[in-house]
Amino acid sequence: MDTHPAEMTVHSSQPHNAEPVRTALAGRDLTPVEVFYHRNHAADLPRIDPASWALRVDGMVERPATFSLGALRERFAEHAEVVTLQCAGNRRAGLIEVADLPGEIPWGPGATGTARWAGARLADVLRDVGVDPAATDVVLTGADVADEPGEPYTVSVPLEKALASEVLLAWSMNDAALPAAHGAPVRVVVPGWIGARSVKWLERITVADAPSSGFYQAVAYRLLPADASPAPGRGVALGPIAVNADVLSPADGAEVPAGTVPVTGYALAGGDRTVVRVDVSTDDGATWTEADLDPQASRWSWRHWHIDLDLPAGTTRVVARAWDSAGGVQPADPAELWNPKGYVNNSWARVTLHAVAARDG
Amino acid sequence: MDTHPAEMTVHSSQPHNAEPVRTALAGRDLTPVEVFYHRNHAADLPRIDPASWALRVDGMVERPATFSLGALRERFAEHAEVVTLQCAGNRRAGLIEVADLPGEIPWGPGATGTARWAGARLADVLRDVGVDPAATDVVLTGADVADEPGEPYTVSVPLEKALASEVLLAWSMNDAALPAAHGAPVRVVVPGWIGARSVKWLERITVADAPSSGFYQAVAYRLLPADASPAPGRGVALGPIAVNADVLSPADGAEVPAGTVPVTGYALAGGDRTVVRVDVSTDDGATWTEADLDPQASRWSWRHWHIDLDLPAGTTRVVARAWDSAGGVQPADPAELWNPKGYVNNSWARVTLHAVAARDG
Repeated sequence: MDTHPAEMTVHSSQPHNAEPVRTALAGRDLTPVEVFYHRNHAADLPRIDPASWALRVDGMVERPATFSLGALRERFAEHAEVVTLQCAGNRRAGLIEVADLPGEIPWGPGATGTARWAGARLADVLRDVGVDPAATDVVLTGADVADEPGEPYTVSVPLEKALASEVLLAWSMNDAALPAAHGAPVRVVVPGWIGARSVKWLERITVADAPSSGFYQAVAYRLLPADASPAPGRGVALGPIAVNADVLSPADGAEVPAGTVPVTGYALAGGDRTVVRVDVSTDDGATWTEADLDPQASRWSWRHWHIDLDLPAGTTRVVARAWDSAGGVQPADPAELWNPKGYVNNSWARVTLHAVAARDG
Repeated sequence: MDTHPAEMTVHSSQPHNAEPVRTALAGRDLTPVEVFYHRNHAADLPRIDPASWALRVDGMVERPATFSLGALRERFAEHAEVVTLQCAGNRRAGLIEVADLPGEIPWGPGATGTARWAGARLADVLRDVGVDPAATDVVLTGADVADEPGEPYTVSVPLEKALASEVLLAWSMNDAALPAAHGAPVRVVVPGWIGARSVKWLERITVADAPSSGFYQAVAYRLLPADASPAPGRGVALGPIAVNADVLSPADGAEVPAGTVPVTGYALAGGDRTVVRVDVSTDDGATWTEADLDPQASRWSWRHWHIDLDLPAGTTRVVARAWDSAGGVQPADPAELWNPKGYVNNSWARVTLHAVAARDG
């Protein structure tokens, strides 16, 4: 694989799975591509020649069509959205501390990132081919094939979401051509939904009257009861992202000077929700202080927050939690939401800081 | 006030605030009007002569209009939706156990109910008068005037929600004329949002470019930080309903025969969320068993659930929690979400059952 800066933790190289350390995400509306997380299933990433790439649009449509990259860019207006992607397995390490999750990647806080994506609206493409009124779902297929299940990566989104103006077929990331490692020449970006629906190396769009029966929706990326094993249709397919938050700076375990310590982080709410408040506690949740919310780069972006804490010398555990626009708050403890595939760890964020008193000259 | 069946707990008579005992809600898709909760602010309920009632539609519209009840019913098609309403203060009693909430009604589990509402779509009325493209909100004003703030009840909903097909101007409840106590001749029903937005005794619809600055949105029905006092604009206006659930049968504190005990309840998720799973625990959340979900009467209705528990003789605390379609789960403890006005208690549901062993003949 490509080389990576020191801020990346590589969980596996084939398939390539890597995340930045939390501080690499701090204080930036947009995450540089060098520290944007990689979540892959196939051992080898597709390397697609843009000149020969074609997107097939078929299924329950009036006029099935195939678009070259040039035709796609020419026929449909380019729209841009600042969107936070987040893997459903983000923060899984906190669940593994509760009970082991063999075979699952122990994602820390960095399986999330925000970019400015630009491309065609999926809605414009769907309207161009004409959707059958009986259709309910849009199936998205990429070029990547993992050993299990041995078929191209396939998931779907409900037609209602597919027609929303924020869902893009993106050929650009942070104002540069979409990198091969992030799905070039064209990937889907489904704002507010788990990253697994934002299909990379897109090759086919199939309008249908049922959700995808593909492995990554019918078996994987599902919320299972605590005592269940994955099986087709067992549990519930994950979709919108539940309210979540994390501390991004200082690093977990950092040594800081006692006194005023700036603490920053992000919060994110998916689907129709926004983040309305972030609280920070230094007494494990007995009392809370409201953090200041920074401006949000877009409706579909994370929201950074900051607070100055007055830390005495010694060790303090800093806890953060976000509230969404329904008045929903993150659960306290990862044990409350442990599940057999280790998804949706949206329990309170916790980092430990070691404050050191200044020494007299 | 009217007389009430024994299943109603009356919190106050002027204004009239009353809720059913939980068992009155059990096992019914629709809540009979006799046991549907009453949440009022004005000491005296408006008694409106339908023959002289008129609905004014004004503000940022092309053609301001006034509709009589006859004109409204004649001009706009009737649509029906089964919708669960829920007061933002439902289950406040659980928050009061954490820390007192002086002056707030100690709602138990019954400030919620489901009815089949029928009337005109608000969207149809708005399209009829023509909405200014710069509009963002729809302000709704009722005829009820409380001592505080001394002005008619007024809130708003975002234009996007106001235009959704499920939002009704209802003149019918459970296939009968809307009762005076529930807002006759016409009330608003905003599915998936806190009951406070479903304005009763509707008199005026004003299209605007900002949310309502009325007391019930700018001061009351807001999520406040734990250390804050209500003040205009402080905190966050509540809107969609966070995932919630409760046990409806047996009653809290009930004596039941040891052995197999059927337990039933409801779960509800607001906004764009649905209920995907309900878990029940008899060991305070250490282990969980999935309950069976009953069919949902509509997209906007609560979802009943049931489970047979095997209870030994003695006292068992039954705990239930629901997960929504974003993988969000209810927080464990009311202390986690205590807030100064006592809203959104969506912590785990808990009832205590006393199982009595059968005696030998």
